[in-house]
Amino acid sequence: MNFAKILSNKIALKNAGVGIVGMGYVGNALAQVIAKARFSVLGIVRDTEKANLINNQKVKRIKATAEINSIANCDIILVCVQTPIFVDKTPDLSFIKKAIIQISQYLRKGQLIIIESSVPVGTTKNVILPILQKSGLIAGVDFFLGYSPERVDPGNKKFTLKDIPKVVSGYDKKSKDLVAKFYANVLRKVVPVSSLETAEMVKLLENTFRLVNISFINELAEYTKSLGVDISETISAASSKPFGFLAHYPGPGVGGDCIPVVPYYILDDAKKRGINLKLLEQAGIINDDRPRKVAQRTLEVLKKTKMKNKRKVLLVGVSYKPDVNDIRESPALRIWEILTRRGISVSYHDPFVPNINGFSSKNLSKEVVKQHDMAVIVTNHSNIKFNTLLSFKKPILDTRNVFKDGKNLNLFRI
Amino acid sequence: MNFAKILSNKIALKNAGVGIVGMGYVGNALAQVIAKARFSVLGIVRDTEKANLINNQKVKRIKATAEINSIANCDIILVCVQTPIFVDKTPDLSFIKKAIIQISQYLRKGQLIIIESSVPVGTTKNVILPILQKSGLIAGVDFFLGYSPERVDPGNKKFTLKDIPKVVSGYDKKSKDLVAKFYANVLRKVVPVSSLETAEMVKLLENTFRLVNISFINELAEYTKSLGVDISETISAASSKPFGFLAHYPGPGVGGDCIPVVPYYILDDAKKRGINLKLLEQAGIINDDRPRKVAQRTLEVLKKTKMKNKRKVLLVGVSYKPDVNDIRESPALRIWEILTRRGISVSYHDPFVPNINGFSSKNLSKEVVKQHDMAVIVTNHSNIKFNTLLSFKKPILDTRNVFKDGKNLNLFRI
Repeated sequence: MNFAKILSNKIALKNAGVGIVGMGYVGNALAQVIAKARFSVLGIVRDTEKANLINNQKVKRIKATAEINSIANCDIILVCVQTPIFVDKTPDLSFIKKAIIQISQYLRKGQLIIIESSVPVGTTKNVILPILQKSGLIAGVDFFLGYSPERVDPGNKKFTLKDIPKVVSGYDKKSKDLVAKFYANVLRKVVPVSSLETAEMVKLLENTFRLVNISFINELAEYTKSLGVDISETISAASSKPFGFLAHYPGPGVGGDCIPVVPYYILDDAKKRGINLKLLEQAGIINDDRPRKVAQRTLEVLKKTKMKNKRKVLLVGVSYKPDVNDIRESPALRIWEILTRRGISVSYHDPFVPNINGFSSKNLSKEVVKQHDMAVIVTNHSNIKFNTLLSFKKPILDTRNVFKDGKNLNLFRI
Repeated sequence: MNFAKILSNKIALKNAGVGIVGMGYVGNALAQVIAKARFSVLGIVRDTEKANLINNQKVKRIKATAEINSIANCDIILVCVQTPIFVDKTPDLSFIKKAIIQISQYLRKGQLIIIESSVPVGTTKNVILPILQKSGLIAGVDFFLGYSPERVDPGNKKFTLKDIPKVVSGYDKKSKDLVAKFYANVLRKVVPVSSLETAEMVKLLENTFRLVNISFINELAEYTKSLGVDISETISAASSKPFGFLAHYPGPGVGGDCIPVVPYYILDDAKKRGINLKLLEQAGIINDDRPRKVAQRTLEVLKKTKMKNKRKVLLVGVSYKPDVNDIRESPALRIWEILTRRGISVSYHDPFVPNINGFSSKNLSKEVVKQHDMAVIVTNHSNIKFNTLLSFKKPILDTRNVFKDGKNLNLFRI
């Protein structure tokens, strides 16, 4: 039987059932766009509670289940589980391995497995493929395997997932063609590359480019500060150059599950190969140091403004970037931790994050501002009424350049 | 007398005479666009030979002279002289100081001086202004002073100078308004910034962004090479991301008068201020090391392909970037020097550079290729017939990814 041909026809007719293992940010965003393209989507999640949550939303063509054996009923399986790093910055592939072992148990002839998670280069071929082939089925003959890195950008209102071209690759030509055909039916544009490893590297490059540039601008901001030059004005003027420049702004450090994580897949593997990526390593160090710098500056400002015996700090915005509720690797958490250790009482306001660690988000009312000695703006959600912070002339450490006027005496930068 | 008003009117009527001190790449490119905007331009150059060269071109409204006292007849004076760095990477301001001393001698009331050269932040106010005021005239009252960084991009066919927005700044409001008004009459868009220092910093940021990103991709290329992943394919696929990414390609190192120079204005000054910009420093080190890497790889390839007793290498392209004849800081010169020291006989082909150091460009004929043991592609001019290099199956070190096919056994990468 020509399984590739059969699946190809199913895709053309939109009869191919799509299973998604891991229904977090990425899995969910993909489910939406795939369902809109008229494919049936089944989210495979860890417990019935999460399954019920998804099923209760009653999105057309999206269902969820906690029953792993449903994998057998899907024609195409997207793997969107998290791939974090350990504390020592080495990749933690335990979640993806576990997912692949489960898939392997229910793998059947004619299925297409597409890895969407960011992974160290070589993972699809050297880690995932052997687990899948333990089923006794052969890749490229019995089943098909591809890698297509997710480019979900939470909070991005300018580009919907459908408009973002998708890089696709396959273990063999049949696999690649099937991945390309599937996504061509879902999104506006696919970008095929020559190997699984290239597609894996594309994602690492994209995220690492961001880390390097954000770290560079954070480093440079130390210099412009000493000059008395406004770095944001400088960046914004440089952005008027229509080629050869891309704006990145300084801030309290990058968070999320990609930018502070993915570059370490490169660094870790390069080190094993005896390759010393000093520039990238330095970028990582700068980023890791940002929350400490913000905490240190907070303490300085409290001292400078004679607030040193007062010790109540309000963090404004705690998620890792504007207009999302994701707090993974958020610099706010580390700032909070350091300030607490230094005897500061921390509370927070974040319209996207109602609770963290037993604390609840405070309303950003005049009363709340009055109760605090200082505010630290960590995340500039578009729906925060920052002007309330100005009511009582308390010092504000503005790490996101929310307030443009440098002449406000209560306004401080990192 | 209201000198600002008078000059403003002259600009509006295009009666203001424009002097340009320094008619190199930048001065010449600005002269063209200013003359097209119907202002009369006078290039002030170092000798009559250069003046004759310009005058013989008979470009409408562009004249040149070696008589410094002609400065007195100009209403607006653009300073476009070179600002290189010394061997120890500290800024060499001798050319710009000399130009400003000359201008100061002929400075008269009502003139506007615009600095276009890249300079360390603070130079316009702390170095240039005091020299000009030695004339006894007062900036902002008797004469006007602005800084507007040049964004000339030699070889760029996509953006003409007229289409590239120009950042403008002034010593005082009157100066800034005059600079803005002048350029608004010349170019499509001006971008005013709040201070001379900000405008100076904008140019440093733009060039330094490039150095950091080119060095990053050169560093990363060492890693992808060890993986067997094609970095160019990776970059090109990553470029399909419509936000948050900008393609930079690996190569033999950046040259020219900006990218390998300007970042050291920052590094040098930061060091004096006790600020350690480690990421930027690393970027500089990586770039400086590229020509050595290319030379080393050339020797490796000669050895590997059993060409080690043969010692004739053809450098293809020697200018610092495609489609220009500028060899300043070109990596080709350092590659050449290192190879020569290692006993290699070097010749070159470059349609843009007929002669260097007593050598002449060879035609890229089959005979010439036959006479050499290996070719090293350093600059990918669009008019070079690279395919000729393939004729005799000699090894080719392709530092610019001119040849895409990785299966050619005679093709090598850095």
